[in-house]
Amino acid sequence: MDYYSSYITKLIEEFSHLPGIGSKNAQRLAFHILNMPEDQVKHFAKAIVDAKENVHYCSCCCTLTDKDICPICSSEKRDHSVIMVVETSRDLAAYERTNQYDGVYHVLQGCIDPMKGIGAADIRLKELIKRLEDDSVKEVIVATNLGVEGDATALYIRNLIKPLGIKVTRIASGVPVGGDLECIDEVTLLRALKGRIEQ
Amino acid sequence: MDYYSSYITKLIEEFSHLPGIGSKNAQRLAFHILNMPEDQVKHFAKAIVDAKENVHYCSCCCTLTDKDICPICSSEKRDHSVIMVVETSRDLAAYERTNQYDGVYHVLQGCIDPMKGIGAADIRLKELIKRLEDDSVKEVIVATNLGVEGDATALYIRNLIKPLGIKVTRIASGVPVGGDLECIDEVTLLRALKGRIEQ
Repeated sequence: MDYYSSYITKLIEEFSHLPGIGSKNAQRLAFHILNMPEDQVKHFAKAIVDAKENVHYCSCCCTLTDKDICPICSSEKRDHSVIMVVETSRDLAAYERTNQYDGVYHVLQGCIDPMKGIGAADIRLKELIKRLEDDSVKEVIVATNLGVEGDATALYIRNLIKPLGIKVTRIASGVPVGGDLECIDEVTLLRALKGRIEQ
Repeated sequence: MDYYSSYITKLIEEFSHLPGIGSKNAQRLAFHILNMPEDQVKHFAKAIVDAKENVHYCSCCCTLTDKDICPICSSEKRDHSVIMVVETSRDLAAYERTNQYDGVYHVLQGCIDPMKGIGAADIRLKELIKRLEDDSVKEVIVATNLGVEGDATALYIRNLIKPLGIKVTRIASGVPVGGDLECIDEVTLLRALKGRIEQ
């Protein structure tokens, strides 16, 4: 790519390392940056560095936050006796958008995935168990993803927590709202059948 | 989005301003940044600022470069009597990738688009005309895009340059290689017919 300035090549390369950004898209983004006003470019670069420097894990629920304890963990309005276990802060945000869940969260920052060499010790499970020590928690809702790894992680958590005498639940799996039955895979259809609720 | 740290919200917002990046994708990119090693994040931010600060227009062909005269314009191996007029540096790069064109370029940095309020004075046409003054240019190949605006710009350039006694050509329009006739629009099919070449 020597027909581009080395600065442009470098920028394209950096963009193409981001997830879901192919080489064509990286070029488009790089040239967009070059056409942006200089102060906007600096703001963008600053936002990147600032976020990385100031954001760390909440010392209670392990979500990403710029405070020691995240706003959800420190809120008195939330029900601290119910903990929803999710894989990532984005999953937490997804449930927060429902505006209906008033418990707290625990963010594993991943899930058990032997294929990628991620074991139980590599995710924030120790921190979860520690939170259960003070007997105030009545229910742990496992909301890891519904794939193989998420299910395996859910099972692992269940086996870990059940002996402590705490109720462990798993979010329901089934046909999504608006879903067209003929487009849904067989495993989901069977899960929906198995999890049917009396009306 | 108060369930995210303000630093994360800001970063997501910055990413979502980029072309083709929706809010979901912006979240994904922002969290990718947060999971990157700190030095990589700083390199990324630096690449953005460096590119913006060091890249400007070539004083000859108006492409984006970090030198006064870009490598193509300053190359003695190129045929300076043939100028290909393109809209953007990315179009230049597209032709450079063919490895077959040995003339030089002129980058308009846009095209005439009255709907967006871009007139002939807003693109690098003056600079093109100036390059034609010294009589060394024998052919101007107009390679603006094949849409309405690109065609209008091509026509404008033709009317501007033709009176100077310089040969003006336009790249061929037709069915792309590998193109399936039944998937090609009627205008392209008609252009391919009109531009047919005797075998």
